[in-house]
Amino acid sequence: MTHRTLIKDLSALPDGPVTVAGWVETVRDQKKVQFVVLRDESGALQLVNPATREIAEDVEDAAAAASALALTETISGLSLGTFITVTGELKHDERVKLGGLEVKVGTLEVAGASLPEAPIAADSSLDKRLDYRWLDLRQPKNALIFRIQTTLEHAWRTWWVGNGFVEIHTPKLMESPSESRAELFQLDYFDLGTAYLAQSPQHFKQMAQAAGFGKVFEISPVFRADPSFTSRHATEFISVDAEISWIDSYEDVISMQEQLLAAGLAAVKAKHGDEIRELFGIEVEVPQVPFPRIPLAEVHELLKSERGYTVPREDGDLDPEGERQISAYVKEKYGHDFVFVTDYPANIRPYYHMRDPETGLTKSYDLIYNGTEITTGAQREHRIDELLANAKDKGLDPAGIGEYLEFFKYGIPPHGGFGMGLARVLMLLLGESSIRETTLLFRGPTRLAP
Amino acid sequence: MTHRTLIKDLSALPDGPVTVAGWVETVRDQKKVQFVVLRDESGALQLVNPATREIAEDVEDAAAAASALALTETISGLSLGTFITVTGELKHDERVKLGGLEVKVGTLEVAGASLPEAPIAADSSLDKRLDYRWLDLRQPKNALIFRIQTTLEHAWRTWWVGNGFVEIHTPKLMESPSESRAELFQLDYFDLGTAYLAQSPQHFKQMAQAAGFGKVFEISPVFRADPSFTSRHATEFISVDAEISWIDSYEDVISMQEQLLAAGLAAVKAKHGDEIRELFGIEVEVPQVPFPRIPLAEVHELLKSERGYTVPREDGDLDPEGERQISAYVKEKYGHDFVFVTDYPANIRPYYHMRDPETGLTKSYDLIYNGTEITTGAQREHRIDELLANAKDKGLDPAGIGEYLEFFKYGIPPHGGFGMGLARVLMLLLGESSIRETTLLFRGPTRLAP
Repeated sequence: MTHRTLIKDLSALPDGPVTVAGWVETVRDQKKVQFVVLRDESGALQLVNPATREIAEDVEDAAAAASALALTETISGLSLGTFITVTGELKHDERVKLGGLEVKVGTLEVAGASLPEAPIAADSSLDKRLDYRWLDLRQPKNALIFRIQTTLEHAWRTWWVGNGFVEIHTPKLMESPSESRAELFQLDYFDLGTAYLAQSPQHFKQMAQAAGFGKVFEISPVFRADPSFTSRHATEFISVDAEISWIDSYEDVISMQEQLLAAGLAAVKAKHGDEIRELFGIEVEVPQVPFPRIPLAEVHELLKSERGYTVPREDGDLDPEGERQISAYVKEKYGHDFVFVTDYPANIRPYYHMRDPETGLTKSYDLIYNGTEITTGAQREHRIDELLANAKDKGLDPAGIGEYLEFFKYGIPPHGGFGMGLARVLMLLLGESSIRETTLLFRGPTRLAP
Repeated sequence: MTHRTLIKDLSALPDGPVTVAGWVETVRDQKKVQFVVLRDESGALQLVNPATREIAEDVEDAAAAASALALTETISGLSLGTFITVTGELKHDERVKLGGLEVKVGTLEVAGASLPEAPIAADSSLDKRLDYRWLDLRQPKNALIFRIQTTLEHAWRTWWVGNGFVEIHTPKLMESPSESRAELFQLDYFDLGTAYLAQSPQHFKQMAQAAGFGKVFEISPVFRADPSFTSRHATEFISVDAEISWIDSYEDVISMQEQLLAAGLAAVKAKHGDEIRELFGIEVEVPQVPFPRIPLAEVHELLKSERGYTVPREDGDLDPEGERQISAYVKEKYGHDFVFVTDYPANIRPYYHMRDPETGLTKSYDLIYNGTEITTGAQREHRIDELLANAKDKGLDPAGIGEYLEFFKYGIPPHGGFGMGLARVLMLLLGESSIRETTLLFRGPTRLAP
């Protein structure tokens, strides 16, 4: 291993020899002195080199002078983006704006040169930036997103593991379309015919309840073949899923999810709060538990009475503007970034959401975060007769859901769960305008690369 | 939430009222007394009920007698596998073989009934068991595998996060085939033509090095379309991947991987060592670091001189028997379950493995665990001219690897990494005969369900 010091760790070191490595962010090639800003995954550092532009005829140490000239020429020739390793002398100096320190270059080795012309700049269009996403990700703000993601996921998994959940990996290749065929990618699968890419792990995480696993979680890719071009949809995205047995109502799922989110955001604030304030201008809010809950019917009334907004949909569901408005209402009224909207009518929920026998409403919810839905959750219908009745009520052919029903036949406890889009959570946490910014390598109907 | 007590926690409770929930494993319906073995995800418990077979004409409390009769009849009618909730009286009794305690049933509620005939038994064929995998997973031994998996992955991620790695989620839908087309599933992707399912995240985890991420990891599904029917191959499996920058040689990758494995196995032994001994008859070995390393050429010599085995392959690679033999040799000689076999010749390695300019051998390795390969790792060739030369040497068309080469053009540091099959590690840790046993829901050329 190159025994380099991460740039963020330099400030704690005394003046003296160090080795650093990273890529060239800027070069200021002045006549008498050269400055390079070197960046690594932890920060940026000023390198300085007194320029040697020619070798005096009467020089005492000709070899040293030739070496100094070569170093100057190497620095003059550095393309931005080139990866280099530098050994030199660290010096703390309060006058240096960049962190109050600099490294005087001793030796400089080019580890991976860049072409001279960078294909994108910080102000390139989003689409152009995504064409060269690996360069776009060198921007400190963009790189930070994925360190935040790392912290968030690890905090979630730690919460789950600490609460007795089992991590599962469910197949992404499925024999039968679980729901709407329109949303499914298809492929030829050996001699078995067509396979479908999973649009959600739900089928399998319910199966894990029939297996008696009790509580499970999974963070994994899912695939949607319907062409969506909004800032919050992707063809392939990471779904954060959990499913638990022995629930009395969807309230048990909600309770689990709000604790999970609070634990995750607390970890993000503790580890990255300062950087997020600096680079995104945002103060991370750790939400109070319990989050507000409002039945959908009441949401519609509040939107009318408190916000003067009537949702222009006939099916009774919320539209994006309705989500923004109820979120704004909750923020004003309760100071909360999250709101659970509950008790959706059956006509806008899938057949496998359990229905309340008295109201006919489903025992389901959406979770809205800073104005946008990030989750659908529900108690599932685990009674096979009711499942069939619900499916029939929706006009579904029971034969089409046969594989799904199979694992309900040999015993399954009451259960429920949720799915949550990882990139959406990050987008809304950081105030970004699109999940394209919070997805490592976005996939959409017009983008399959890089 | 049903306020149930997990069965494993009962032994710490005093005699008195408890609620438990799980599925019916056995029913012994004797004339005067009924016994039910109830299992949940944590253990098994004996329920007992004094049978009431008829209501005496002169009974004092007719309602209580009717209730007792109904309970007896419910228990008599329980199908195995049915999920039930039971409230009753816990009693510690050393004469009870199953954990030294039993619960006398007060009320019993059927939460999810099973059909009367179980479609599989413990001695069903593997293929039959996999047809009803959700029932097969109720076997304590099978369920334990996935709690071990949870612990192992969490220990790995904790190690990575503690060592400054970034968790990435790379796309599984790719525009171009990265290597051999024969191994790739294809699908129609909107108007963009054909997409391929990733057979490895390698392309993208290298891209993250060009992005300056430094150290990354990912645990994610990958897909192989070549028909393999061995006990250690699957069409879809979970790949455990890491990639790090600024390495001097593959030795840096090896060093990271052996620390990771030792940390994971230590966590498994600490949390599940007793259960593994009981259910698998295996003592978990936490490997000493460093693991033995042997160059491939020396492995061939040792196989001949020490084991009398000549590998019957012309290309110089090891065969499965060679892996078993060298593993046995290392176990005998060093008492170690792992061995890194290093320095593979270029003809049996892909073009992107860095070659040693003096020997021509690649800077790559395989890791063998208890007789079977679980990993290929390498320092990657990050210099674009050498990459092209290697590709040409292999007879590859440079146009076919154009997208792969793109992100080498704008600077990339020296780097390397490994990929490791999760189900193989579990199979070899637990002495199982096939990854079908250590995969939640196996996918192979003849299996796409459940």
